Amino acid sequence: MTAPLTPTEIAQTASLASHVLKAVSGADRDAALTAIHAALEANKGAILAANSKDMSAASALVTQGKLSQSLVKRLDLSKHGKWEDMLSGILQVKSLPDPVGKTTLATKLDNSLDLYRVTSPIGVLLVIFEARPEVIANIASLALKSGNAVILKGGKESVHSFAAIAKVIREALESTNIPPGAVQLVESREEVNSLLDQDQYIDLVIPRGGNELVRYIKEHTRIPVMGHADGLCAIYVAEDADEQKAVKVVVDAKTDYPAACNAVETLLINSATLTTVFPKIAQALIYAGVSLRCDEVSLAALESTPSTSGVTLKAGSTITAAVAEDYDTEFLELTLAVKTVDSDDEAVNHINRHSSGHTDAILTESKERAEDFMKRVDSAGVFWNASTRFADGFRYGFGTEVGISTNKIHARGPVGLEGLMIYKYKLLGDGQGAGSYGSGEGKKRFLHEPIAF
Amino acid sequence: MTAPLTPTEIAQTASLASHVLKAVSGADRDAALTAIHAALEANKGAILAANSKDMSAASALVTQGKLSQSLVKRLDLSKHGKWEDMLSGILQVKSLPDPVGKTTLATKLDNSLDLYRVTSPIGVLLVIFEARPEVIANIASLALKSGNAVILKGGKESVHSFAAIAKVIREALESTNIPPGAVQLVESREEVNSLLDQDQYIDLVIPRGGNELVRYIKEHTRIPVMGHADGLCAIYVAEDADEQKAVKVVVDAKTDYPAACNAVETLLINSATLTTVFPKIAQALIYAGVSLRCDEVSLAALESTPSTSGVTLKAGSTITAAVAEDYDTEFLELTLAVKTVDSDDEAVNHINRHSSGHTDAILTESKERAEDFMKRVDSAGVFWNASTRFADGFRYGFGTEVGISTNKIHARGPVGLEGLMIYKYKLLGDGQGAGSYGSGEGKKRFLHEPIAF
Repeated sequence: MTAPLTPTEIAQTASLASHVLKAVSGADRDAALTAIHAALEANKGAILAANSKDMSAASALVTQGKLSQSLVKRLDLSKHGKWEDMLSGILQVKSLPDPVGKTTLATKLDNSLDLYRVTSPIGVLLVIFEARPEVIANIASLALKSGNAVILKGGKESVHSFAAIAKVIREALESTNIPPGAVQLVESREEVNSLLDQDQYIDLVIPRGGNELVRYIKEHTRIPVMGHADGLCAIYVAEDADEQKAVKVVVDAKTDYPAACNAVETLLINSATLTTVFPKIAQALIYAGVSLRCDEVSLAALESTPSTSGVTLKAGSTITAAVAEDYDTEFLELTLAVKTVDSDDEAVNHINRHSSGHTDAILTESKERAEDFMKRVDSAGVFWNASTRFADGFRYGFGTEVGISTNKIHARGPVGLEGLMIYKYKLLGDGQGAGSYGSGEGKKRFLHEPIAF
Repeated sequence: MTAPLTPTEIAQTASLASHVLKAVSGADRDAALTAIHAALEANKGAILAANSKDMSAASALVTQGKLSQSLVKRLDLSKHGKWEDMLSGILQVKSLPDPVGKTTLATKLDNSLDLYRVTSPIGVLLVIFEARPEVIANIASLALKSGNAVILKGGKESVHSFAAIAKVIREALESTNIPPGAVQLVESREEVNSLLDQDQYIDLVIPRGGNELVRYIKEHTRIPVMGHADGLCAIYVAEDADEQKAVKVVVDAKTDYPAACNAVETLLINSATLTTVFPKIAQALIYAGVSLRCDEVSLAALESTPSTSGVTLKAGSTITAAVAEDYDTEFLELTLAVKTVDSDDEAVNHINRHSSGHTDAILTESKERAEDFMKRVDSAGVFWNASTRFADGFRYGFGTEVGISTNKIHARGPVGLEGLMIYKYKLLGDGQGAGSYGSGEGKKRFLHEPIAF
């Protein structure tokens, strides 16, 4: 048995593999996905056995009160449909169009001097995620499809599952034209820390996990980081919001999956709706088990209209006074901060100040008002009469997603394969020097004619 | 007179201005460029007077041996055509198509649930550059055209010129719909250091200057940095390179503007060319005043063929033995490192290891060989039979350039207006919740149909 690679060696290995990946064909990359799919299928027993080790260890921690039951659920690969979804996900990624080598710009600079901009892989990705062992297959597929090498670090709770899946992937790659070093696994936090220093080999870090993980990584690396620390989404109920739509959208955005980053955390209500639409929304939320943290005005509105549109409390839900931090809190549970605003302007300003730039929505019947909101709110997703929960790569039709980015450069919002690509400029000449061109006498002029592609 | 803003206030002011800029029309942004152009024209006298103060100070430093004469030349705004070029550059940027609000993807998720991806400004840029006062007008134009606010820091040698130009721009903006805070100037290094911490307000840092500046900035900020530290470009002369093309391309790439980042610094020669094409290239370089630092094999080749294709030394040029560091050096002068390789593979590996990922070229008559090289070399520009000096936004037909990026994400190579844009997703719904969609019974399916745009 050989000694395990050091983090530097892991990064170098990934870099070398990335150079091979850049040169192989799309068919070669697809063949690797087929091989991984088949190998996972063939080794289901061994992987599920490893997964049940993780489950036992996690269950023991739950008994000791050191781990939440919901985390154990996320670990479970044998849970209905999860294994099948993981395998079909690989084939889905395979079926996507090859993102490598696509021409996105072509210009004739001069006769026999043609410029092409073509998509190319970024290089080496470091993907760090928590729990959910099936993510490894998903990320490995996305990386290989896009011609990138990837180093993966999973959560410590799923270490056996990860190791088993990684071993199968590695062995599967040995029969293909893709070097096994294209997908590597690291297990310890120390290795990750060291990898975060390898900016000469690693081109992009993608953290998929909680706020704390993302912040930690952003603080500890010079490598670009793509992801989102917070998902603090807001919905603004404008004065002309339709009652039925508002109730449906807000309840969905809060309750469909409260732990998701695209769940709504702040409800901004125009003061004109305090006695009209707002109490209906509040009642529906309360019925759905949501606790409201209301500013003074909205609290008073709910208390003062008990007979007509007033709100009846249900077990488990509370209506309490909000504190300032509530408008900067990602609750990730059935709690919603409510704030009254007097104008669209105030709503937009609140969002640009407090939201995390993930997804924010307006509920209004006015297209003009919606367009103004969507132009001025500086978030990855700006929605009109639709739940913030739609902010998701699958729902957007990308087939799959690498994650959701609140970055202001490169890729923003749900990131599909495109987010793992960059481009290069190819210039095909015939021996020209740049000194022959210019505006002076005797100098050649550039043609700059578009080339059809 | 009010107290000058603190760096935090500068960043906040820029952020507020960026929110206004996102909402104004393209016509408003163009009108600002027209106003700036007119104001600069009207204040030519005052600006040139300020510039001559900088020139006098710089000339004094030259006399004391503390500054190079070439820097003084770069400072001079009254040098033939520079002022006119600066002004016409503003109108050129104005004439480019509006990059804001362009739809780049449109998908019908369901009936009355339409997704649009539209380009939007990044937000707040911090641009740091050395000398060359005319750059301020160029950068301000690019920023405003693309709807971004910008904070500018110029070199200390051109502080009077910068201040004069910035004042004129600021006053010009007061008559427009663009807040004057959209273009701000900072003067001291300390302010820049403090601004590099303002990652909640500043979205992108663009350093335009030497290696040291870029490295310093990358080390001292969490804000994404777009630029290039080095321009270590290589040209590979393959065994079937055409002699005439090779001579022309290599001489141009080395001598057209040796101080530029796209000048060639390393010449890789296939060993098959040692007694054929290489001596011709070497002779032409020597005639052009270039000193060669050759590896053992190429040095021997030049020495052993004096009578036939041998190289005659010209005054000022030397042929010496290379040391290892020469292949990692950006000479920025008439010096070229030469290395012999035995295969295309070796050339590609050398480049991927030593080049800065800026621009690298192959000289060959084989399209297949060229395509293989361009696929495998991981650089922003990969050229075939053309000088590396073509790597430039103007030459590429972008009208202008923000700089050249060797980043692996967002923007790579010469960066035009597109590099100052990101996008947002607009979802136009009719009151839908995400919970109604899915694969289960009673759930709606997404349509995911492309919408023509």
